[in-house]
Amino acid sequence: MRMYDIIYKKRIGEALTKQEIDFAIGGFVGGDVPDYQMSALAMAICFKGMTYEETLYLTDAMMRSGDVVNLDRFNGLCVDKHSTGGVGDKTTLIVAPIVACLGARVAKMSGRGLGHTGGTVDKLESLTGYRTSLSSNEFLSQVEKIGIAVTGQSGNLVPADKKLYALRDVTATVDSIPLIASSIMSKKLASGAHSIVLDVKCGSGAFMKNEDDATELASAMVELGRGFGRNVRALITDMSVPLGAFVGNSLEVYEAIQVLSGKGESALTELCVALSSNMISMALDIDIDEATRQVNEAISSGLALSKFKEWIDAQGGDTSKIDDPVLLLGAKHKLEYKATGDGYISEIDAEGVGVASMLLGAGRAKKDDEIDFLAGIELRARYGDYVKKGDTLAILYASDSALFDSACARLDFAFKLSNKLPKQKSLIKKII
Amino acid sequence: MRMYDIIYKKRIGEALTKQEIDFAIGGFVGGDVPDYQMSALAMAICFKGMTYEETLYLTDAMMRSGDVVNLDRFNGLCVDKHSTGGVGDKTTLIVAPIVACLGARVAKMSGRGLGHTGGTVDKLESLTGYRTSLSSNEFLSQVEKIGIAVTGQSGNLVPADKKLYALRDVTATVDSIPLIASSIMSKKLASGAHSIVLDVKCGSGAFMKNEDDATELASAMVELGRGFGRNVRALITDMSVPLGAFVGNSLEVYEAIQVLSGKGESALTELCVALSSNMISMALDIDIDEATRQVNEAISSGLALSKFKEWIDAQGGDTSKIDDPVLLLGAKHKLEYKATGDGYISEIDAEGVGVASMLLGAGRAKKDDEIDFLAGIELRARYGDYVKKGDTLAILYASDSALFDSACARLDFAFKLSNKLPKQKSLIKKII
Repeated sequence: MRMYDIIYKKRIGEALTKQEIDFAIGGFVGGDVPDYQMSALAMAICFKGMTYEETLYLTDAMMRSGDVVNLDRFNGLCVDKHSTGGVGDKTTLIVAPIVACLGARVAKMSGRGLGHTGGTVDKLESLTGYRTSLSSNEFLSQVEKIGIAVTGQSGNLVPADKKLYALRDVTATVDSIPLIASSIMSKKLASGAHSIVLDVKCGSGAFMKNEDDATELASAMVELGRGFGRNVRALITDMSVPLGAFVGNSLEVYEAIQVLSGKGESALTELCVALSSNMISMALDIDIDEATRQVNEAISSGLALSKFKEWIDAQGGDTSKIDDPVLLLGAKHKLEYKATGDGYISEIDAEGVGVASMLLGAGRAKKDDEIDFLAGIELRARYGDYVKKGDTLAILYASDSALFDSACARLDFAFKLSNKLPKQKSLIKKII
Repeated sequence: MRMYDIIYKKRIGEALTKQEIDFAIGGFVGGDVPDYQMSALAMAICFKGMTYEETLYLTDAMMRSGDVVNLDRFNGLCVDKHSTGGVGDKTTLIVAPIVACLGARVAKMSGRGLGHTGGTVDKLESLTGYRTSLSSNEFLSQVEKIGIAVTGQSGNLVPADKKLYALRDVTATVDSIPLIASSIMSKKLASGAHSIVLDVKCGSGAFMKNEDDATELASAMVELGRGFGRNVRALITDMSVPLGAFVGNSLEVYEAIQVLSGKGESALTELCVALSSNMISMALDIDIDEATRQVNEAISSGLALSKFKEWIDAQGGDTSKIDDPVLLLGAKHKLEYKATGDGYISEIDAEGVGVASMLLGAGRAKKDDEIDFLAGIELRARYGDYVKKGDTLAILYASDSALFDSACARLDFAFKLSNKLPKQKSLIKKII
């Protein structure tokens, strides 16, 4: 078998066999297939696509390229959640304790943030002392004991995806449904959960700009997961505006605590309830209405917040800020960002807010950049609100007041005002 | 400027600017653009093509990547010929002395053979002593003195093409009209001739399998050459059967001498006359009928053959075999390959004959393989001939009789017999 023939076959639009895909991925990870052949294949896939079977073989080959976590000991109770990435998305912090306190198990590996989107692991580290590298034994025994553990991604989980994604990232071959679907699902499958809820974002702040593309990606991932015998559901959700009112690491932990205390912003709360309900509906095999009832009960009873505290404590994080969350908003400098005219807010571009937050120190422009946990943005006005000149649209948080200028300049492009009340947007567009 | 954006732009089908193409090619040759980005760009070009302007910029960037030969001292009399490669194609050996003895100048760099097609430089080396590496001064002063010099390709002529072709060859990105056209034309333009005749082969033994593709490639190259102010014509010629009756290095020199002596096979002679006529028509600025008359006269008068001998002598080659050409057919072992049934010869697959000849030792499977100059195949039966079982179809020449078996096995697939007289094929299909 030769990589040349595999590239050529895909170039002329033929479907690759399992053997060919195994050869390509195995060779790529092992170093026998050079980057320049893999990038040519990736580009041919961008143009010619992949059948369901090919995508399944690709996902399987990637999944098997490294360690595969076995969570069978938890008897199918383990449930995972994946978001395709958005600005202000702190849902993992909220849904994990909700579902864990209801009897499901969360054994989750999460990533760090890069660019305008944040990462769950970074957010958790704003609770001083939180350990993001647990040993496999620590990880599993914590799940056994308290039903929840969230750690950083293990070094040898799906190395094929790590290598392939890095290559796609520099060869303009990222946006291909089969490549994205296999990248995400190979990691979810290798992580071992029996049930998976996918939160596929669409809109200006997301990778998928429109609902059709998001639906196509979601369907591909749901089918793939089912092909591997997992329970999978996908929610298509809006990411044209940031999720919730806070963007930035400790600010998002603050907001997560608000939601777990029953005092969260309505759209964020709605999404977290929907995600949690679908998660426990699959993990506990109960209908969605009963699941929703249990989720609401978990929040109002305070059980979910207790579980959150138990989890942070188990992983060594400082829980004093959970009791006094306002400490999480303790940045040295704050600036009120004000409206320069009157009108309805017709746009709060999620990507723009994410970039502005990154400029304040909350995110990484490059992989090795340091994060300022206290930096970020609190949105004081929401999509559709009517504001007058001088009204506060947002509060900027930073350790260095010199950073405000560039962040404000970016925000000037993110907020748009209109004379007309803008069309209402539904947060949850579809469940697949 | 970033290579990523250039790849992405081509991926979505937009035309690249001169600056972008210069950046990509310059970076690739200089080592700043890695192979994996260039192969992704090449694959995107295979799918999205290039406009005339883009192809012109690409050709220009490649041409300028190394030395550019200046032949201005010859006042526009220099004429070059390029064949896209075929089996049994010894036309350079024939047309070069014809046009040189008529007053045009041939300052030509030729390649070596690889796979089933031979190279002019290898063929010339079968005349013992022939020097294929002339210094630039030797090369130009020989052209000045006798009107002709043919040398191997210089190390620094179009390094971008050398590097890019090697990459395309292993990433299934060879067959793209703009990439092929710019590859060929950058070399022809860097070689400096003012007039260029292109022999674009089509058929089973050629890269372009059908006349439409060959015409598209030929038109692209003619337009490119004219864009650089050169006189360019292209002949689309058949390569479904081998050209002439001999395949193999010294065997092809033998056949070239036959044609120069007026005793050549008719189709090969016809093609050489057409190529030569177009070459001197452009170089001397005379009409094609007058050019054809002069070419025929050069052969019948013996002037062309004398020029051939003068040329080989000037470059140190053994001319005794030119006086006694049968010495060129002196392989140690010969085998008659016979018909196994009766019928009209409806196919002599050029590629099959080329591979069989390579198996006998006449060609290289890998770049560093040694060549056996005396090995090859003499076709005794032609397309359309009626043969009976036991008639000799070909004579195989080899130094080692153990090689006959695999060559015969390959020839069994190359020859096809039919009950019906096959459709006549025209050798020269079109002149552009």
